[in-house]
Amino acid sequence: MEKRTKAGIPVVGFAGFSGSGKTTLIEKVVQIFKSRGIRTAIIKHDAHRLELDHEGKDTWRFAQAGADITIAASPGKTAYIEQRERPLDELLEMVHDVDLILVEGFKNHALPQIGICRAQNGKGFAHDVGRYLAVVSDSPAEANCPCFDLNDAQGVADLIEKTILHST
Amino acid sequence: MEKRTKAGIPVVGFAGFSGSGKTTLIEKVVQIFKSRGIRTAIIKHDAHRLELDHEGKDTWRFAQAGADITIAASPGKTAYIEQRERPLDELLEMVHDVDLILVEGFKNHALPQIGICRAQNGKGFAHDVGRYLAVVSDSPAEANCPCFDLNDAQGVADLIEKTILHST
Repeated sequence: MEKRTKAGIPVVGFAGFSGSGKTTLIEKVVQIFKSRGIRTAIIKHDAHRLELDHEGKDTWRFAQAGADITIAASPGKTAYIEQRERPLDELLEMVHDVDLILVEGFKNHALPQIGICRAQNGKGFAHDVGRYLAVVSDSPAEANCPCFDLNDAQGVADLIEKTILHST
Repeated sequence: MEKRTKAGIPVVGFAGFSGSGKTTLIEKVVQIFKSRGIRTAIIKHDAHRLELDHEGKDTWRFAQAGADITIAASPGKTAYIEQRERPLDELLEMVHDVDLILVEGFKNHALPQIGICRAQNGKGFAHDVGRYLAVVSDSPAEANCPCFDLNDAQGVADLIEKTILHST
């Protein structure tokens, strides 16, 4: 399975239950890519809206007042906030000028995915491991695909670079 | 002077020095438009990056790790954060599916603008009032264009609706 934006940017997902360690792993993988000059975008599913509501800020006030879209333009930074949920395919098409898109969550979508499981939390993988490009776990996993330890961000980054980024 | 996006969405600016009351006026104008069924987007110049950096949040962690773009997708909300400043014309083209774009700041740009001044703060208008579509002030202004009191959001909304929204 392969997934690319219309502009040709390859996409890889990180799928796992809440608390499996997706965010920390992605953070480390992005740091590694950054050090290699690979530009990344991250699309994160945020089920609880923890990221976005900052009471009292102007962007929050404008949304409360009824603005459908608020854009804040700062030196070296642009933020676009819309009062509407968009399907993943539309989110992917918002992205330009990067080499790779990492998707956190959206575990039921058709993407090449890395399955993540923290056995210590008592939960397994979100899907049958046969679905995954690779699996990442805090305990040895039985799978017919590459397996990495939860702390092996380097191994995961190498695999993504080899199979997703240089697959053409 | 008229300004529209490529999709035809009309644009109006609110120009004035810091502390003149732009944000509060825009907030009230948007509330009025909302009650009239007019969909708005706001583009805000945020010189001090007060809006966007929320230390410890995942979007902040991803930016620190080196992601060029982070998108957080929540129920009923989408946020797109890019580590790059974009010119106003690019910001305008990010906006779709609204009836009107209100621009706060960007006072030196070529837009139909409403000039705002709070004389109490000891500062005048940012530019010669001849430049403005209308002026808004806490004290009577001498101008050859419509003048409104800082609290008269209704008057400002009516003027925008008449001259910007229904100008075609």
